[in-house]
Amino acid sequence: MARLLRAATWGLFPWRGYSQGPCKDFVEALKAVVGTPHVSTAAVVRAQHGQDESMHRCQPPDAVVWPQNVDQVSQVAALCYSQGVPIIPFGTGTGVEGGVCAVQGGVCINLTHMDRILELNAEDFSVVVQPGVTRKTLNTYLRDSGLWFPVDPGADASLCGMAATGASGTNAVRYGTMKDNVLNLEVVLPDGRLLHTAGRGRRFRGPSSCSRGTHLPCMSPGTRKSAAGYNLTGLFVGSEGTLGLITATTLRLYPLPEATVAATCAFPSVQAAVDSTVHILQAAVPVARIEFLDDVMMDACNRHGKLNCSVAPTLFLEFHGSGQALVEQVQQAEEIAQHNGASHFSWAEKAEERSQLWAARHNAWYAMLALRPGSKAYSTDVCVPISRLPEIVVQSKEDLKASGLTGAIVGHVGDGNFHCVMVVNPDDAEELRRVKAFAEQLGRRALALHGTCTGEHGIGLGKRQLLQEEVGAVGIETMRQLKAMLDPRGLMNPGKVL
Amino acid sequence: MARLLRAATWGLFPWRGYSQGPCKDFVEALKAVVGTPHVSTAAVVRAQHGQDESMHRCQPPDAVVWPQNVDQVSQVAALCYSQGVPIIPFGTGTGVEGGVCAVQGGVCINLTHMDRILELNAEDFSVVVQPGVTRKTLNTYLRDSGLWFPVDPGADASLCGMAATGASGTNAVRYGTMKDNVLNLEVVLPDGRLLHTAGRGRRFRGPSSCSRGTHLPCMSPGTRKSAAGYNLTGLFVGSEGTLGLITATTLRLYPLPEATVAATCAFPSVQAAVDSTVHILQAAVPVARIEFLDDVMMDACNRHGKLNCSVAPTLFLEFHGSGQALVEQVQQAEEIAQHNGASHFSWAEKAEERSQLWAARHNAWYAMLALRPGSKAYSTDVCVPISRLPEIVVQSKEDLKASGLTGAIVGHVGDGNFHCVMVVNPDDAEELRRVKAFAEQLGRRALALHGTCTGEHGIGLGKRQLLQEEVGAVGIETMRQLKAMLDPRGLMNPGKVL
Repeated sequence: MARLLRAATWGLFPWRGYSQGPCKDFVEALKAVVGTPHVSTAAVVRAQHGQDESMHRCQPPDAVVWPQNVDQVSQVAALCYSQGVPIIPFGTGTGVEGGVCAVQGGVCINLTHMDRILELNAEDFSVVVQPGVTRKTLNTYLRDSGLWFPVDPGADASLCGMAATGASGTNAVRYGTMKDNVLNLEVVLPDGRLLHTAGRGRRFRGPSSCSRGTHLPCMSPGTRKSAAGYNLTGLFVGSEGTLGLITATTLRLYPLPEATVAATCAFPSVQAAVDSTVHILQAAVPVARIEFLDDVMMDACNRHGKLNCSVAPTLFLEFHGSGQALVEQVQQAEEIAQHNGASHFSWAEKAEERSQLWAARHNAWYAMLALRPGSKAYSTDVCVPISRLPEIVVQSKEDLKASGLTGAIVGHVGDGNFHCVMVVNPDDAEELRRVKAFAEQLGRRALALHGTCTGEHGIGLGKRQLLQEEVGAVGIETMRQLKAMLDPRGLMNPGKVL
Repeated sequence: MARLLRAATWGLFPWRGYSQGPCKDFVEALKAVVGTPHVSTAAVVRAQHGQDESMHRCQPPDAVVWPQNVDQVSQVAALCYSQGVPIIPFGTGTGVEGGVCAVQGGVCINLTHMDRILELNAEDFSVVVQPGVTRKTLNTYLRDSGLWFPVDPGADASLCGMAATGASGTNAVRYGTMKDNVLNLEVVLPDGRLLHTAGRGRRFRGPSSCSRGTHLPCMSPGTRKSAAGYNLTGLFVGSEGTLGLITATTLRLYPLPEATVAATCAFPSVQAAVDSTVHILQAAVPVARIEFLDDVMMDACNRHGKLNCSVAPTLFLEFHGSGQALVEQVQQAEEIAQHNGASHFSWAEKAEERSQLWAARHNAWYAMLALRPGSKAYSTDVCVPISRLPEIVVQSKEDLKASGLTGAIVGHVGDGNFHCVMVVNPDDAEELRRVKAFAEQLGRRALALHGTCTGEHGIGLGKRQLLQEEVGAVGIETMRQLKAMLDPRGLMNPGKVL
């Protein structure tokens, strides 16, 4: 420890040696905590951890560690804290706002080795998972329980990572976002202390070799409701790894729907598609998904998937329910859509037919990439009150054209949330500049319509200026105070959100 | 101002004069802000504001003010802040955990004169209301819009007050609690600064005489989803007036159900009633309310309402939906209940029949009071994972008997949340002591079963010790830091929560 403290006198990043990379003593100290095989300073490994799926430039950490249990996370955090070393939590790396870029170097804590489903409480509709458990793994595990976890951002992301970024996706219109479905969090604070946001755990009674370590309590499963003190869970959901490391989460589960029906229909205009959405919601049809794809996206999907869909604004719908209720839902939705000029209303009940029908939506990302071989996709998202959706979608399509960009709009239209996916030549700096300018303009358009600059992707690196404009001086000051309170040394995922 | 600052050198409560009550200068300063008719130091008025509907001892504030707009709230807060005067927000006073007791005296800010519905956005399913708007007023206003606000704690509470206490109630199992339904808050911070928790407002374009004052922006209606920065809305919902004053809230609205059906059925045991609840939820029956009343409560209701219900654990259910779907829901629920031994399954569709059927539930509080003329009711609430509900209800009934108390259990059983309502002789200090000991024991039982010491009533004055036990040292320390950060002088509703 004395050697480590001596290291702390070196330069701006004191834990780095005189040469490149972290000083040897510090790396040895990390190895002493998590074991030699679970620390890496290899360039290729660091590069893998320095970027997500976005086009934000790779900024590798100085070292990557794979803790095996929460004790080790706590010890690594305490070690970094004592030495002033930045800490970057890492799940599946499937974010799209640069949330894992190590802008000041530091230690990337890859949490995927902690991959246990700790506790399923089927009667209570809840499950406790570690950060290595992804959404698909959980739903596979749940298959025979009659339950499922519906939040679906597309990627097979880590559930704790989804909590950290406040993810949502296609099912949010019916089942809510991570905000609505996280019941409790186990959080390692930057100094290594362990916080349970919605109540303390109990001591783990299992074998001492379990991946929770031996002396730390398990997490309480959490209750559906609580009015006990300040909502700490809500504070950490969506904090993007800037306030602490999420090492376990209790999630709310739902009964598997008895049956599922999918439907698609094309509309003469964006307005008609959005009007249908509002009318369907107003009619209290409990639609599970309602997704919008614009004409550009439909065209790309036709080309990519050799499909024959109408090249027109299109809604993709999914209904969950039981027998008779489901038929009624689909009928109501179809009537409303037709009243708004929809054509080609087709629906499918069997799993195979459903996925055929939804093929366009599921492959949208790849269809866009296929439009320009060698290109990369840049996705940005905003959310507006649903009544302003037609206006902003039409404006955005004009902006895209005016900027000479290839982009399409796809959205979780029931929530007023949509993405603009652009394909870019990654080597064309000028085009990239236009893409970024467009994304910023889109964010400002959303704010002008009383929306938010991000409905689900988060602030990350790219939207910090927009966040300031959105929440104003008092809002930003309050967020800065929160950050300073929980992370007084500014070590947790620096450079993000604020 | 100079005179006020001089006043600030007086004793423990420096803004009080040498004699009783606040010093004259300070009262004059309040009058200068809100106008003479809107300040009172009359004993009877102060007493009215020093207690809620609970049995917590009345602790009157030193003065009561009625601001007419948010500018005035801001100025009153800034005045109190500069003088170190406690601030207690007041809505309808219908809380049950002593949240308005002025334990250190101070200025009670009665917000009910700000009673405008500022903005209804029917297409966006949202409404912006001031603190003087109650739940029933809003739903009356909405009647012709086809929308409603479902959170229903029983009392006709102020919606901003419901946001402040994180209220929920009978509809939460289907529509969620205030946590799930507040989209944005306008908050006056203790020093008078104005915060919009989910995005800034725009300047108000209405007549300058409007109750918003002239120079402050209106609130943004807020979006269904946002991933922009830390969740400040979640931080203030349920903060019980200890972090700031809520002066407007944007709420999420729902389409009025096409039809409503109510049902009741009696069970041979608590276990059978709870098992039915779990099975109904597991079957994905979208029940809107599912309430449990124990045998004691049913007996009291029979006596009070001259009803002829079974004196047995009983479920009261309500279903919202459209024609065919509703029939299916009721049939499924009935089958499940009968499978669990239910008898007397009766259901009603017409509004009149429904309220007849639900009469017992609606009058439960008064039925209990009628059991002992001259008594007062003491209500405490806890919430546990639903699988632990039978166990804790049975234990609690034994505890009641062992303590020689008259109490009944009534609960929002679909959420694992229940109340124990006891009738007490308010002049019998010894009985009151036993009631408090029982409530504390119930809270501890809930914690032992991984529940929370309050599902919806809040911590207020009475559950601060239980909160500490529930969230542990790191949890309490984090909450204390939050309080110190937002209210560094400790003036907002002192003595509550922490």
